[in-house]
Amino acid sequence: MSFREMDAGGHEHVAYYRDEPTGLRCIVAVHDSRRGPAVGGTRMLAYDDEGGALTDALRLSRAMAYKTAAAELPLGGGKAVIIGDPAEKTDDLLRAYGRVVDSYGGRFVTGEDVNVDVSDLRVVESVTDHVGGTGGGDGTDVTAAGVVHGLRACFAETDGDDSLAGRRVAVQGVGKVGRALVARLVDAGAEVMVADVDGAAVAAVGDEFGVESVAPDAVYDEPCDAFAPCALGGVLNDETIPRLRCDVVCGSANNQLAGRRHADALAERGILYAPDYVVNAGGLVSGVVELEGGDPAAALERVGAVRGRLATMFRTARETGSTPLAAADRFAEARMAEGGERQLF
Amino acid sequence: MSFREMDAGGHEHVAYYRDEPTGLRCIVAVHDSRRGPAVGGTRMLAYDDEGGALTDALRLSRAMAYKTAAAELPLGGGKAVIIGDPAEKTDDLLRAYGRVVDSYGGRFVTGEDVNVDVSDLRVVESVTDHVGGTGGGDGTDVTAAGVVHGLRACFAETDGDDSLAGRRVAVQGVGKVGRALVARLVDAGAEVMVADVDGAAVAAVGDEFGVESVAPDAVYDEPCDAFAPCALGGVLNDETIPRLRCDVVCGSANNQLAGRRHADALAERGILYAPDYVVNAGGLVSGVVELEGGDPAAALERVGAVRGRLATMFRTARETGSTPLAAADRFAEARMAEGGERQLF
Repeated sequence: MSFREMDAGGHEHVAYYRDEPTGLRCIVAVHDSRRGPAVGGTRMLAYDDEGGALTDALRLSRAMAYKTAAAELPLGGGKAVIIGDPAEKTDDLLRAYGRVVDSYGGRFVTGEDVNVDVSDLRVVESVTDHVGGTGGGDGTDVTAAGVVHGLRACFAETDGDDSLAGRRVAVQGVGKVGRALVARLVDAGAEVMVADVDGAAVAAVGDEFGVESVAPDAVYDEPCDAFAPCALGGVLNDETIPRLRCDVVCGSANNQLAGRRHADALAERGILYAPDYVVNAGGLVSGVVELEGGDPAAALERVGAVRGRLATMFRTARETGSTPLAAADRFAEARMAEGGERQLF
Repeated sequence: MSFREMDAGGHEHVAYYRDEPTGLRCIVAVHDSRRGPAVGGTRMLAYDDEGGALTDALRLSRAMAYKTAAAELPLGGGKAVIIGDPAEKTDDLLRAYGRVVDSYGGRFVTGEDVNVDVSDLRVVESVTDHVGGTGGGDGTDVTAAGVVHGLRACFAETDGDDSLAGRRVAVQGVGKVGRALVARLVDAGAEVMVADVDGAAVAAVGDEFGVESVAPDAVYDEPCDAFAPCALGGVLNDETIPRLRCDVVCGSANNQLAGRRHADALAERGILYAPDYVVNAGGLVSGVVELEGGDPAAALERVGAVRGRLATMFRTARETGSTPLAAADRFAEARMAEGGERQLF
């Protein structure tokens, strides 16, 4: 760790904690706390190289700050990484980690991530109140609703008509969010195609909604109005982008772009890309509404703002000759700056 | 920073803070908080290399943990380093730093150090309660009293007689503590020699107490019962140790040994070394007593424990064939372990 890395990412805080009795080693990174408490999941991985843990903490806390700001939530972005073999995760270690979380006094609030699930969080919760995502709520449908709002914003931008009726949409991945998205698209009159490496899941969705399927790798070549990545990250890359035959990319998957330059590659091909972190804010919105005591209907209403935000970003991109991704980043940075005083320290 | 460095030093916590508006960049290190809140000064230096700042924070927080534990105070050891040119120190920067201190909620308490003085601490105090050493108290005489207790413990060890009457003691440095030590030694009937690069200070002490002086560099060659370093660090080194003609080294200066191996070099020459961090606990004791609302008499009484602690360490060293420094370290580590639960997180 060095200040050079924090300068590069614009981070406020990086901290290392070491607990000898339990073997806990963790890194907490906070990118920005001007809008409010830094939120971000906790992951546990047996990193070969400690530098990888730091890189994850820095990268993911920054992504979270942009996501919370773009969603105009009163939250900042953080991330925690526990270095260790998940097979050696003990309750004592999780409680020691809980004390780390608690030491932030609510200025850092954490939740699930890779190898840290709800049952682990319940142990963390035994020593601190500053844990989210254990309330049993499920943001799946709210996330899917956010993608539908995103698609409408995209079509309004490409041809001035936000209707989904008759639009051909290829949905990659029919896990929880993908399936909920298919339901909403079919209901809105869209013509849906689905692809998933899990053949049984494809068959089930096909039976339930009467939608066609394409082979997992063929989804990139499918002529359609919109491609909705709802599974893996990195699916927009040097190999796939030249194959795309869509006008719009808008889906719920995290980190859809293999790299930032792929936002340019999409723009050069005339494909409108709705930045993933703006589109998939539904889960976060749902969690916040749950914490505020609101019901799913309130979360569904609130996620509707995705549409107006994307419209603003598309207009900025058009007017400034930048990509929607660059416009989204500027939008998020402006929201962070509006936050005023940093709250972490 | 890496966990490897924390493992090597046994540290609990290292944190980086970056405040863009004020340019604040600081590192807070906590070595051990099992005995209580981590205390340690804040220094500000324009480090050429950021690694030097980290090394200072790690090294000095560890030294503070050993010092507080050896003094059996209910405190742990920490340190903060602000990276920057002291000429560019602003109130805004100090207030941002104060918010860093405040974020620890009293689990880290700071005070003066290089380029951070009482007037700076008053600015820090405007945003946090967790600052010590601004109460106007002066631990000088308590520190000097601790050195006298240390000398008595040394003579009891070397020849079974703790009397100072007629002992020849060479005092290096007649700043505040050195001068107070001379007063106490003369009062106890010792024969005192003083050395200082400040000729006027030497002359003043000579006039006041009727003590002899030696040239600053000649103090190492002076035949005496005890050499009391009360000025610079690093004065016990490869060049000076072979020149010493004393039975005992016991003084108030910090970091008297150029390196740990110089404790062995002193033992090999048959010189009894009273570990500096045990001997010079008076300032810390004085600060704690002041915070507890006690008066200087209470602090003077409490610093008397230096004598019994050194006697224990000398006996351990004798019985285990180790140096007093190694015995002091084991003593401090045992006191830390007795502290039980870590309090930082």
